[in-house]
Amino acid sequence: MAVDVALQFELEDLYSRYASLLDDGPLRDWPDLFAQECLYLVIPRDNYDRGLPLAIIRCESRGMLVDRVRAAQETIMHEPRYLRHHVTNLRVTAVDGARIDAIAHFSVMEVLPDELPRILCVGRYIDVLQRRDDGA
Amino acid sequence: MAVDVALQFELEDLYSRYASLLDDGPLRDWPDLFAQECLYLVIPRDNYDRGLPLAIIRCESRGMLVDRVRAAQETIMHEPRYLRHHVTNLRVTAVDGARIDAIAHFSVMEVLPDELPRILCVGRYIDVLQRRDDGA
Amino acid sequence: MAVDVALQFELEDLYSRYASLLDDGPLRDWPDLFAQECLYLVIPRDNYDRGLPLAIIRCESRGMLVDRVRAAQETIMHEPRYLRHHVTNLRVTAVDGARIDAIAHFSVMEVLPDELPRILCVGRYIDVLQRRDDGA
Repeated sequence: MAVDVALQFELEDLYSRYASLLDDGPLRDWPDLFAQECLYLVIPRDNYDRGLPLAIIRCESRGMLVDRVRAAQETIMHEPRYLRHHVTNLRVTAVDGARIDAIAHFSVMEVLPDELPRILCVGRYIDVLQRRDDGA
Repeated sequence: MAVDVALQFELEDLYSRYASLLDDGPLRDWPDLFAQECLYLVIPRDNYDRGLPLAIIRCESRGMLVDRVRAAQETIMHEPRYLRHHVTNLRVTAVDGARIDAIAHFSVMEVLPDELPRILCVGRYIDVLQRRDDGA
Repeated sequence: MAVDVALQFELEDLYSRYASLLDDGPLRDWPDLFAQECLYLVIPRDNYDRGLPLAIIRCESRGMLVDRVRAAQETIMHEPRYLRHHVTNLRVTAVDGARIDAIAHFSVMEVLPDELPRILCVGRYIDVLQRRDDGA
């Protein structure tokens, strides 16, 4: 696949906005990065490697992501904490018209009061992006 | 804001030099990355989010950063350790003439003898950079 | 040194493939990223800083790396686990014909069952890359 610096830059910027919205808000803008018809899955590595479909989070539209944000902000109880994402080693794996496949590594660090930060989870984004008129 | 790959590259290189000087030295060159008249603040997230100005570190000029390096090297006592920075998800948020606003995520890992590395701190750089003749 | 966005992009892509092969496989393809005649050293920071040559891992050819992969896959016993690399802050430090010198920061996160991820190691890649007809 030909090297495309501009596309790489564009995607890295997108993933950085993504991380920034999750860590520093406004969280309600985060679903806007998804298509109306999207599929957001968080699959444990064991399941993924064995081709098992069970996902611990499954959102089948942008509306469900909006619900999830509302749940996180208004319903779920948890200790006060901050998150910090690192999204690195982004690679475009395929481009087909307006469709872009990409993978990236991520870590989510959690900061609780009076403790050293710890790693909440690490993993891999395996994404299919759809280019719109104004971006992904 | 228009995508500017060259500027992005330039800033990422700057932040990488920044991280490299802090982790692998020479630490005395680190203040050179700042303007003579600079303001270096480390503000706890709680204070920042509430608009409270108290910073746990406040250096109001490059000279104060030089002092801080000297303190770190000659005065402060701590266990032998190594640090490792990750600076990721850099985004330029505004460009106005020679002034560039940028944000980035960082983690600082600390390595002590005979222990697994741990996360010393995570956070966000919120920076105003001033372009000189020879770089930022 | 002149800013070379294309070279930077190319190397970041290489390091991302490197990280991806280690984390998500196929691990047997990892040695292909090295020249037939290569030198792969993992040197503790204390030794490196003092100029001491002792390396905890020393592979003097691609063949030895192939052996190491086979050992990791077939011989070494360890708990089931997943790894996740972050390779960041890559900088080209010198270019001389087909030879490229580069440094980068890395972390390796380890995920064990029923535990929060932890940092297995952090450090710095100090690399000499040789350009072939088809890449590094």
